[in-house]
Amino acid sequence: MPQTQFPPQRLLLGPGPSPVPARVLEALGRPTVGHLDPHFLGLMDEVRAMLQGLFQTANEMTLAVSGTGMAGAECLMVNLVEPGARVLVGVNGVFGGRLVDIAQRCGGEVVTLEKPWGQVFDQDAVIERVKDLKPDVVALVHAETSTGAHQPLERIGKAVRKAGGLFVVDCVTSLGGAPVKVDDWHIDAAYSGTQKCLSCPPGLSPITLSPRAVKHIDNRQAKIPSWYLDLSMVRNYWGAERAYHHTAPVNMLYALHEALVLVHEEGLDARFQRHRDAAAMLWEGLADLGMSRWSDPDHSLPMLNTVVIPDGVDDAVVRSRLLHDYDIEIGGGLGAGKGKVWRIGLMGHGARKPVVTLVLAALREVLAGS
Amino acid sequence: MPQTQFPPQRLLLGPGPSPVPARVLEALGRPTVGHLDPHFLGLMDEVRAMLQGLFQTANEMTLAVSGTGMAGAECLMVNLVEPGARVLVGVNGVFGGRLVDIAQRCGGEVVTLEKPWGQVFDQDAVIERVKDLKPDVVALVHAETSTGAHQPLERIGKAVRKAGGLFVVDCVTSLGGAPVKVDDWHIDAAYSGTQKCLSCPPGLSPITLSPRAVKHIDNRQAKIPSWYLDLSMVRNYWGAERAYHHTAPVNMLYALHEALVLVHEEGLDARFQRHRDAAAMLWEGLADLGMSRWSDPDHSLPMLNTVVIPDGVDDAVVRSRLLHDYDIEIGGGLGAGKGKVWRIGLMGHGARKPVVTLVLAALREVLAGS
Repeated sequence: MPQTQFPPQRLLLGPGPSPVPARVLEALGRPTVGHLDPHFLGLMDEVRAMLQGLFQTANEMTLAVSGTGMAGAECLMVNLVEPGARVLVGVNGVFGGRLVDIAQRCGGEVVTLEKPWGQVFDQDAVIERVKDLKPDVVALVHAETSTGAHQPLERIGKAVRKAGGLFVVDCVTSLGGAPVKVDDWHIDAAYSGTQKCLSCPPGLSPITLSPRAVKHIDNRQAKIPSWYLDLSMVRNYWGAERAYHHTAPVNMLYALHEALVLVHEEGLDARFQRHRDAAAMLWEGLADLGMSRWSDPDHSLPMLNTVVIPDGVDDAVVRSRLLHDYDIEIGGGLGAGKGKVWRIGLMGHGARKPVVTLVLAALREVLAGS
Repeated sequence: MPQTQFPPQRLLLGPGPSPVPARVLEALGRPTVGHLDPHFLGLMDEVRAMLQGLFQTANEMTLAVSGTGMAGAECLMVNLVEPGARVLVGVNGVFGGRLVDIAQRCGGEVVTLEKPWGQVFDQDAVIERVKDLKPDVVALVHAETSTGAHQPLERIGKAVRKAGGLFVVDCVTSLGGAPVKVDDWHIDAAYSGTQKCLSCPPGLSPITLSPRAVKHIDNRQAKIPSWYLDLSMVRNYWGAERAYHHTAPVNMLYALHEALVLVHEEGLDARFQRHRDAAAMLWEGLADLGMSRWSDPDHSLPMLNTVVIPDGVDDAVVRSRLLHDYDIEIGGGLGAGKGKVWRIGLMGHGARKPVVTLVLAALREVLAGS
């Protein structure tokens, strides 16, 4: 007969989930109230306001989708990509590839831009392609969790808008750990996850949509293929109408609220600097161990570090020792990186000096013993 | 600046969420581990085994969808309804209507069976219609949360199977509070929610699919329109392959595991009896107050009770007093019941004698004062 199980206390340094602070876990376990309770509606309003701060946007349609990050990706695509729409997607890792798959399922005619894994797209090259193709939707991954590549975005959105399209950005891994300037960068729709740099458990996907994107939804011809993710209905629950759509994951929103209060207390600039400092310290230590980066050094994420596994080192053995002897999780490679790299996440609450010191010391011991 | 907010301690007697026991809240707040951590994979296996017990099925494809109950509904529909499929849906409340909407978005050609709200379908009448129409999919709501109607199902599935179709059942509100015999009743696919008779916070949708339903997914021609809910991929994460699909909502699954352990400790028969006893006690008290049932008395749910609001009583005032003076949430009417009925949920941990005593006493005081 199954019994209550208490989980081990891991140090989560993989591609997410990241370490969850005690305050957020405590918030998660608070008494559940109804999804139309005045207390909860007030909390939702604050979640929205704090997400607007984090996305650096005034977008009214800013909310948390009731699913994990990939539900957010699908939500934006099913709402914005109509059958026959021309969709330009940048593919330089797993998550760009997933956007292609999702856009195709929506009936989009997808054209890809490709780059070797670990590299980023040159903004001018993307802009040229946008001018030629005049796509209805352009989708890029800001933070490729499978490679550690950090895509520059600041000039692309303006060009997409000029060409009459909508600019969609995956910032699942960057939001809360590096700047995501939705308004300044002319991003029309962005989605993220809670379990990366927000250090909240997985289960929600923060999204934001520009007034242009909302107008597109209002004017679209084809019915939105998903009922659950139909923003023309979801927004009436997050908005003043408070119309029941589905039962919101109440406790997950308690946790997200608390995680956002923590971000607010720290301040965005200090938080981004902390992520950069932790990554710099990690790479100093990895260099001492003779290890090198997989992703383009000029365009690498601070919160997701891809390390080339040295010749002769057994990937699975090292990760298993870290997990079982040290309670440390680091990530294996994904897709083209499988068996070739480790992914060390220093996300949110994990981007701290003692954490980096410990993972470097543990890696040193394990590598010496292997 | 937003601050940490502690929610009020409500007694949740609406249509869900229901009262969450301390053990489940405590489980929810346990330390997050990775979604591929051996501890977590073991916990998922136990969740599946316990869900099989609850659904009274041997179906291998039994799991929790990473979204609320409506995500489970959509999951079954997008996987089982191909464009052009003939879908017969019973509509006698809000949730049947939603199944129509979702099936149509999947490209299904929907035929409805209709009944006044609060009534159920005669099984023979459904079987006759199935014989005539030979639908690809037949969908019925076992427990209509908007009306309190309790649909008999035990003979329909066999007829659907004989006619070559798949039988899909919404048991969001019944699972864990009344028998749902998936195998005995020849149900091919069923979906539920965690925030009703399982007394777990909202955020997951337990589903089960028969081998016939799985075969249908394997053989379908059209690509499944949803990536997030594509069971041909999701099953590889819940199955032996453990292939990464999306990051599971780890802490929500801790909570569901604990909620299922509680069900397991109590035993299904005792739990169903407790729900019947609580409802009987409630109706005895409501009769004393001169109040009557909206739904067909011979086919009413024990866990969701629709009470006709007496003439001259102000719906909003009574519910607001219960909430603010007693910290008790009961539900207002939905759809055709709006302003006409209250929905009193005695679900899971809420189906207990002291709870019924309190809500009756509070109602008596509020009605006397109004």
